[in-house]
Amino acid sequence: MQTTTLPLASRASDLVGSVIDSSTSLLASQTHDIVRFAMGSPAPEAIPTHVLAEIGVREIGAEAPDAFDYAATEGDAALREALLAQLSGTTDATSPERLTITSGGMQGLDLAFKLFVDPGDLVVVESPTYTNGSATALSYQADLLEVPVDAEGMQVDRLEEMIGSGRPPKVIYTIPTFQNPSGASMTLERRHRLLELANRWGSLVIDDDPYGMLRFAGDAVPSLHELAAGDPLVLSVRTFSKIMAPGLRVGWVDAAPELQQLLINAKQAMDTCTNLPMQRLIAGFLRGGHLNEHLTTQRAVYRARKEAMQAALTEHFGGEARWTDPEGGFFLWVTFGPEVDTERLFEVALAEGVAFIPGNAFSPSKQFPHALRVCFAATTPKRIHEGVERLRRAVDKVTS
Amino acid sequence: MQTTTLPLASRASDLVGSVIDSSTSLLASQTHDIVRFAMGSPAPEAIPTHVLAEIGVREIGAEAPDAFDYAATEGDAALREALLAQLSGTTDATSPERLTITSGGMQGLDLAFKLFVDPGDLVVVESPTYTNGSATALSYQADLLEVPVDAEGMQVDRLEEMIGSGRPPKVIYTIPTFQNPSGASMTLERRHRLLELANRWGSLVIDDDPYGMLRFAGDAVPSLHELAAGDPLVLSVRTFSKIMAPGLRVGWVDAAPELQQLLINAKQAMDTCTNLPMQRLIAGFLRGGHLNEHLTTQRAVYRARKEAMQAALTEHFGGEARWTDPEGGFFLWVTFGPEVDTERLFEVALAEGVAFIPGNAFSPSKQFPHALRVCFAATTPKRIHEGVERLRRAVDKVTS
Repeated sequence: MQTTTLPLASRASDLVGSVIDSSTSLLASQTHDIVRFAMGSPAPEAIPTHVLAEIGVREIGAEAPDAFDYAATEGDAALREALLAQLSGTTDATSPERLTITSGGMQGLDLAFKLFVDPGDLVVVESPTYTNGSATALSYQADLLEVPVDAEGMQVDRLEEMIGSGRPPKVIYTIPTFQNPSGASMTLERRHRLLELANRWGSLVIDDDPYGMLRFAGDAVPSLHELAAGDPLVLSVRTFSKIMAPGLRVGWVDAAPELQQLLINAKQAMDTCTNLPMQRLIAGFLRGGHLNEHLTTQRAVYRARKEAMQAALTEHFGGEARWTDPEGGFFLWVTFGPEVDTERLFEVALAEGVAFIPGNAFSPSKQFPHALRVCFAATTPKRIHEGVERLRRAVDKVTS
Repeated sequence: MQTTTLPLASRASDLVGSVIDSSTSLLASQTHDIVRFAMGSPAPEAIPTHVLAEIGVREIGAEAPDAFDYAATEGDAALREALLAQLSGTTDATSPERLTITSGGMQGLDLAFKLFVDPGDLVVVESPTYTNGSATALSYQADLLEVPVDAEGMQVDRLEEMIGSGRPPKVIYTIPTFQNPSGASMTLERRHRLLELANRWGSLVIDDDPYGMLRFAGDAVPSLHELAAGDPLVLSVRTFSKIMAPGLRVGWVDAAPELQQLLINAKQAMDTCTNLPMQRLIAGFLRGGHLNEHLTTQRAVYRARKEAMQAALTEHFGGEARWTDPEGGFFLWVTFGPEVDTERLFEVALAEGVAFIPGNAFSPSKQFPHALRVCFAATTPKRIHEGVERLRRAVDKVTS
């Protein structure tokens, strides 16, 4: 890039691209048949377009010009009310003075990092972690510390060792439930321990939990939000992207009441407000009582797809690779032996007609050259088998 | 606020609230009849909901689940194509490698300031200026320099004097056409001069022009984008908020091709992508050829309303206040004598049933305690007369 003559800010050099988002464009431009394990989107047939279309006639139709005006920055009153009612009695229950509607969960992360990170501040991220989360911390010039994840989520004991008596982190960024990309969930014991450490260090915990409502196996674990019981050092980020549809770009932040005005001020300087038609559409969906039913259907679909993915992997890669066993969410994390470079594999696999995200996309220091993330949620079991078969052919090509 | 125990970033203290956006919430909570001159929204009856509803059935209806998926970060291909065709041959004509779709014009400003402003950098803003524009620069800890606006737009000669041989600005932020809040347009001569100065100083010019397509009187002046002829130091911010509807939250940035990847990277760390259903709706509107007709209708409506506002002001405040004479856009700027404190007036006027934005909201250093902004676009001529009559009563109350 020829940007040398432009008076860019110093942070411009810390703006890393997202392999995941770039894949959206790349895949859109492909003309051949591709089994898409790459994006973290819900199944197209799981998007409740028929219900939304009906609601849309009333809420954002020809007689609803006010649905196209500016929204209040903290969120449209109708959505706020419907969401508070929806969450009441769940592990994510909250209250008006803690709730701010955002433009997707991603804006919740942007708000949190913008409010809390000065250049050079230490930010803990999981390893592997969600690319755009760590990218946002980097965009405010954070120093990242990558803490390994195992089957029980972030290794909180390792975090404590890594910090030792050194500089405590300003922010700890975690995806505790059905983690992106590993699918792992943090145990209750580790959740408590993480909150204790954050409290001792005075660190903000960003509790990014987009998949928590999509549990299809195992026992529920309380959210970090619930366990924190109002501790102002826990800021929770949620989204309708995975439980309804990502194109809506509507999410919410649940934070200490003393942060709400700051969140609103920061959001006004980002995008004024979140798009109102989609807020009204979601409000109608929640008020109509559709979400719980929708989630029940989705969980069964995703459970079957996860099982199909594991069966196909066993068939084609049994004994040769290993993979995680998530109890919910969208993702499996597959680890190959050192002979498979998944960045090289990506191009060969794309030519074979299957797409995934290489492991290194999920680590700022690129610690996962032999792993990859597959999303099982958006593809039917039949296509999942087809996709894994294609992946087998691609692996054979790069290792032969 | 009790934020002292939270480990906030230093920029958090620079996050100023927006009087304009706060007014959205405030006005929504009022139950009495209010003539609304406050918000910069198009007329509700000017929002083409009937056409959008028809397009919506096809583009975002029951059979269009893909419209609810993630969009490409640079913008949906359908919207990009339709927009490029729409702009072709106009003063805002652009090309694919210069175009990035944003979540409203506001995100265009957030992107520009995030990419170009380090803490302490000098940013020139107009005085008065758009609150959220200066607030975004402040959120990246800019030092602001306020340059006065007169009937011919930013006083570029004053800018040159104020800089003198001192530190040149990193960024010059201007709303050159039907400026918010003054309604003034920068003359061609000043536009050329501004570009010369920016070139000499190596400053980035942010050309924020939301109202340029809404000229209802006088002769067209080329956009800064057109005059810059590809100069990478001019970044243009545009939006569908004023020409279609603000609730869509869709706009675009037109910038040097060497900036496009940086803009995409920065946007991925802000909100991943702009909501896809509204992009598809706008694409359908543009492809159907509706925008030009819509603009023609709107211009006639807004011209009549501006004239109604001026007539009502003359009737009630002739000889006692003065106001601007915009050739397009949404706003008139009214200046009273020193006996009228418009922040105090605001509350009294709200009780009388009329809302506006006090002048000091448009100046970080609060240089306009006796001025106010009225939006004439959203109110019928009859209601405009009613609103100005109420304003008269409010002024009488605060000055008696």
